[in-house]
Amino acid sequence: MGRTYNFSPGPAMMPLDALHEAQENLVDAYGTGMSVMEMPHRGPEFTAIRDEAVALFKELAGIGDEYSVAFIPGGASMQFAMLPLNYLGQGRSADYVNSGAWGYKALRQALAAGDAATAADTRRSAPARMPRPDECKWSENAVYAHITTNETIAGAQMKDIPEPPAPLAADMSSDIFAVPRDYTKFALFYAGAQKNLGPAGMAVVAFRRDFAASASPSVPEILRYSTYIDEHSLYNTPPCWCIYMTLLTLRRLKKEGLETVFARNARKAAKLYAAIDSSGFWRGTADPEFRSVTNVTFRLPSEELESLFVKQAADLGMTGLRGHRSAGGLRASIYNAFPEEGVDRLAEFMKEFERKNG
Amino acid sequence: MGRTYNFSPGPAMMPLDALHEAQENLVDAYGTGMSVMEMPHRGPEFTAIRDEAVALFKELAGIGDEYSVAFIPGGASMQFAMLPLNYLGQGRSADYVNSGAWGYKALRQALAAGDAATAADTRRSAPARMPRPDECKWSENAVYAHITTNETIAGAQMKDIPEPPAPLAADMSSDIFAVPRDYTKFALFYAGAQKNLGPAGMAVVAFRRDFAASASPSVPEILRYSTYIDEHSLYNTPPCWCIYMTLLTLRRLKKEGLETVFARNARKAAKLYAAIDSSGFWRGTADPEFRSVTNVTFRLPSEELESLFVKQAADLGMTGLRGHRSAGGLRASIYNAFPEEGVDRLAEFMKEFERKNG
Repeated sequence: MGRTYNFSPGPAMMPLDALHEAQENLVDAYGTGMSVMEMPHRGPEFTAIRDEAVALFKELAGIGDEYSVAFIPGGASMQFAMLPLNYLGQGRSADYVNSGAWGYKALRQALAAGDAATAADTRRSAPARMPRPDECKWSENAVYAHITTNETIAGAQMKDIPEPPAPLAADMSSDIFAVPRDYTKFALFYAGAQKNLGPAGMAVVAFRRDFAASASPSVPEILRYSTYIDEHSLYNTPPCWCIYMTLLTLRRLKKEGLETVFARNARKAAKLYAAIDSSGFWRGTADPEFRSVTNVTFRLPSEELESLFVKQAADLGMTGLRGHRSAGGLRASIYNAFPEEGVDRLAEFMKEFERKNG
Repeated sequence: MGRTYNFSPGPAMMPLDALHEAQENLVDAYGTGMSVMEMPHRGPEFTAIRDEAVALFKELAGIGDEYSVAFIPGGASMQFAMLPLNYLGQGRSADYVNSGAWGYKALRQALAAGDAATAADTRRSAPARMPRPDECKWSENAVYAHITTNETIAGAQMKDIPEPPAPLAADMSSDIFAVPRDYTKFALFYAGAQKNLGPAGMAVVAFRRDFAASASPSVPEILRYSTYIDEHSLYNTPPCWCIYMTLLTLRRLKKEGLETVFARNARKAAKLYAAIDSSGFWRGTADPEFRSVTNVTFRLPSEELESLFVKQAADLGMTGLRGHRSAGGLRASIYNAFPEEGVDRLAEFMKEFERKNG
């Protein structure tokens, strides 16, 4: 079978040559006589993998020694819980931007663990949009502020990052290294690996050491950010295979250069939005000012046509185009590793579909 | 390079034919045009993988519909924290058997989250041993009792499982499916995957639904056992690749039959203990009554000889024989997937080493 163009929101397509390298080395990794899955996590072979992954991540993010990078099991949802566990309780409060389904999930975990204020709320906006920085109202004594840089379900993305008085934390699962960002603005940022970095099962979390040090010491050790500084992600056995695959992805991002990746992502998104805007047959569901580069959401005149579109696209090897079950409609998720040819093919198919059904 | 005999305590050797199957299917999994790492976690392809893994695990453990099986990110250490978070606090207490380094780690997390009593303590015993059931003193009102069925660092294993009045929870990371057990005695049991089941990064956790339902509702959702019943491990994106590799391992356990696996494990351990007992040159560090089937711990007359042994064995393709840094000495971890030929080779090398250095 040829390669499927998988437009799913994550787990998502990975770089094909990274998959080939992983395949070649799966049983005997680089002449060690072991699979990466079998390597002792404190041995020299895996230590080299982890250290290079940390160094490359920091280099690509442009962050220095004041930051730690940790590989924490569990994805972004674990971070939704960890962040308030580390900083809230005992009367402390944080500011959350409630920008959509994911911002809301993060906010709910903060409210369960302690106190949180909503700095801005665009969760139910239609068309989907993000708060602009000047629309956010920050508290005076928040211990941190939390944003979601891209809402995958709504297809809306923050173009300008707000600058709250409190340390800024961000869920960047769906657009890390996908668009230009100044990562030094963040006290903590994290990304579930399965969209732009590697396989599902962990988040890459970068945080300023001083921010981690200010956390509550009553959190269980494995959920405490400072644990991951002291132990270099080796408090317990880390998700080694996920770290390895993330390294293979990071190496390719570096080799190609982030500017090239950003330009291609912008081109990919522009092609799909142009197809959507080309006629009244299609309707984009996000406010054009906030359209996401990584998740393109749109509708057809009827749900019947949407189902037909999803089915016919799948028959042509383009899968995962159905919108999230809470939102309906259509969605094309086109993260860093999604090939431009797949976007071209979808845009062509959209024209053909309109010709036949418009 | 030939295949290394990796005696590490975990991550550990995986079944070679499972690695070959994973390799063959890494880029295009079973004709889907996707890697398993790229499959949408709610799609039909991955759902089939997860459902089969759950069903096989239950079948091999001999547990019925009153149990749920969940794939929870983070390994056994996450369970050390989750268990007390779910059940302790507000004056509730649990009983812990402090049987060694791992039992102690679990106990420490319980003491951090709430209250815990020590039902028995063999942590510092030399030679290493486990408490017998009649040596355990149980509290009257414990909400659960926790044991560690095998201590990897000490090389001691519980032969008889105690029957406390409270629901019994167990860390079985290092001997799940390695020796015969009646799993229906447990209200909850878990195993970090990286020793006997699959790659590092998750634990397989089985629990009686009624026990999960009795947990505190104030735990963050992602750390609440009941969440994993309701959502079939899909509260968030699960560690898909780890689940897939675990499935490949479980299939092989079923095909071979657990009785065959148990017999081979017993034979493997007996060969190494026989080599240790063959002369005064070697010294086993665990009480013979409690010798572990999966982690064989021993010493040589001097640390210099131990270092020489580790080095020469590594030169012959037998790695990971150094004891844990906290215990020193030597250790051969020989989990389910460790081949019997590797044990034979180590036993031969031990004879040769003694001839030259004895």
